[in-house]
Amino acid sequence: MIRLTRRAALGLGLFLAVFTVPPSAAKEAAPFGLAVHGGAGVIVRAEMTPDAEAAYRAALQAALDAGYRVLETGGSATDAVIAAIQLLEDNPLFNAGKGAVLTHDGICELDASIMEGRDRRAGAVAGVRYTRHPIALARAVMDQSPHVMLVGEGAERFADSLGFERVPNEYFQTERRRQQLERAKQRDEAAARAAGGPGAHASSADEFSIPDLAFDAERKWGTVGAVALDRSGNLAAGASTGGMTNKRFGRVGDSPIIGAGNYADNRTCAVSATGHGEYFIRVGVAHSIAARMAHAKESVHTAAAAAIADVAALGGTGGVIALTREGAVAMPFNTPGMYRGLRFSDGRSQVDIFGASP
Amino acid sequence: MIRLTRRAALGLGLFLAVFTVPPSAAKEAAPFGLAVHGGAGVIVRAEMTPDAEAAYRAALQAALDAGYRVLETGGSATDAVIAAIQLLEDNPLFNAGKGAVLTHDGICELDASIMEGRDRRAGAVAGVRYTRHPIALARAVMDQSPHVMLVGEGAERFADSLGFERVPNEYFQTERRRQQLERAKQRDEAAARAAGGPGAHASSADEFSIPDLAFDAERKWGTVGAVALDRSGNLAAGASTGGMTNKRFGRVGDSPIIGAGNYADNRTCAVSATGHGEYFIRVGVAHSIAARMAHAKESVHTAAAAAIADVAALGGTGGVIALTREGAVAMPFNTPGMYRGLRFSDGRSQVDIFGASP
Repeated sequence: MIRLTRRAALGLGLFLAVFTVPPSAAKEAAPFGLAVHGGAGVIVRAEMTPDAEAAYRAALQAALDAGYRVLETGGSATDAVIAAIQLLEDNPLFNAGKGAVLTHDGICELDASIMEGRDRRAGAVAGVRYTRHPIALARAVMDQSPHVMLVGEGAERFADSLGFERVPNEYFQTERRRQQLERAKQRDEAAARAAGGPGAHASSADEFSIPDLAFDAERKWGTVGAVALDRSGNLAAGASTGGMTNKRFGRVGDSPIIGAGNYADNRTCAVSATGHGEYFIRVGVAHSIAARMAHAKESVHTAAAAAIADVAALGGTGGVIALTREGAVAMPFNTPGMYRGLRFSDGRSQVDIFGASP
Repeated sequence: MIRLTRRAALGLGLFLAVFTVPPSAAKEAAPFGLAVHGGAGVIVRAEMTPDAEAAYRAALQAALDAGYRVLETGGSATDAVIAAIQLLEDNPLFNAGKGAVLTHDGICELDASIMEGRDRRAGAVAGVRYTRHPIALARAVMDQSPHVMLVGEGAERFADSLGFERVPNEYFQTERRRQQLERAKQRDEAAARAAGGPGAHASSADEFSIPDLAFDAERKWGTVGAVALDRSGNLAAGASTGGMTNKRFGRVGDSPIIGAGNYADNRTCAVSATGHGEYFIRVGVAHSIAARMAHAKESVHTAAAAAIADVAALGGTGGVIALTREGAVAMPFNTPGMYRGLRFSDGRSQVDIFGASP
């Protein structure tokens, strides 16, 4: 708990970067378009090669373009969110789908959710191991079941019943994530030795401690997500993740929790979050942004920044992308960087990684 | 979907019973105390024997008394919530712990969550099969792990690591619930035959349909829950459930979802919900009550009634218990009845089942 508290202080010390893009044509018809994120964290230019930066930018742009094509041809916000997120799930650069982080047991367990702003319909899955596109399964839960959330083997049996293709768990696993898991385990073992000597049996609480992110070169929250606004004025939001490296005991973060990692309501906004999921659940980040807009009449920028400030006050880090029906986009985060971008029919188009907007 | 819509219309037609108890001594020190619920639904006096009514009343009173004793002797709101809910979990009358409803596969899968208002710490478990008191495991997740939510086998392995006793799943199963499952399956089969003839293979969507509650004699949402305010002025909220009869595919409702079935924030209120979980998740019921109080400056009564009205507008039914730091309690529901009660140090003490307050 002390380490968490120290990290909390660090998190608070980080500047709260608020990257906002006002809609350019408020008086005209609302634009259509989307925004995406690929995770927030200690992402700094000094630690990133030009090739890596180019690869991330290209991947974000490809996701934006895929979603934009859907919207341009009259597709729904939900279709656009799915199209964008599936590309990010396929890309091993991001902690979702292929290339997700590994659990303590060395496998990938995936969570995803989607929500529509019109009727607040929603679908979510957690602990999925064999479905290539968890976001597509979340959508099937929304569209083809009376339920909102299915977890574990049950979610997979539902996928089977709909004829979803199964992929082996190895499909998701990458060498980079195996090395990351090894480093995380070595750090945990070193910490346990330091705490109690080599022969000491770590307490339950110690065994269960999460990696110390202060020493994690990959100290990023790698969830991916998208929010979209279609030509009909409907909003949708989605999120997909592999969760935390070295996670144990069926841990579920905020991504599949409607109201925490994801929310959409046409009356306010669509939100997709990325960050230290436990804090995002406790704050109810995505729902709280919608609620602040509805009840405190805050702008999406004010509301989103307030939600991230609330996470920071508890000691958490991360960011969100939030989109209104008028096309206003807020992307606040309290980490050094967040993979993010947007593309709208009014000409706004950008991709960013680090703290300062171009 | 048509049946859902018809039920929605029915739900809207039901009167919105708002059962509120204002604090009697606003100027004096805030009282301590708690409120509990044992589920909402089609609970009407004409269908209940005097013996059954007496048994439910006694069980609710016992839970209130157990929680009250904890508070009276200086225990925390969290301790009181746990004490009250464990008694309800032990009692086969309620759909939580022993006596929980059965899944399609004939076993019990249990969900629970707890949250504290002071620091908004929270813990939740879903899909638990072998832990006698799921609410105690949710508390262990909050207190002894860095996580908020653990699901399925992983949650059980965490319980093992802490030395929680395992009980066989049969411990939770009762004859009454087996009969209830049989009736639910027969109804579903009859509905499938009516839809496509005896030889017809039901579509995936049909296979997955929930029981038609209009023909379910036990059409109740049986979650149990408690909210408490201790002598130190701290709030806590908890919920525990077996979910839906005949549920499949790892379905998770609102009870273990922080912000949906459960929320606590000392700045506003503690909420525990019971109802058709999917709607409670989509609305973000528990968090929305806190948010309305924080941002719209609504009273707990107005905010709680508005959240249930929001559920009703989407077609859902259920209720909540909500408690402020000043000791104000709101218990709105849009079903004919809700098992509920409260006991406070200022003398308020009551147990109710049907729509009208005594």
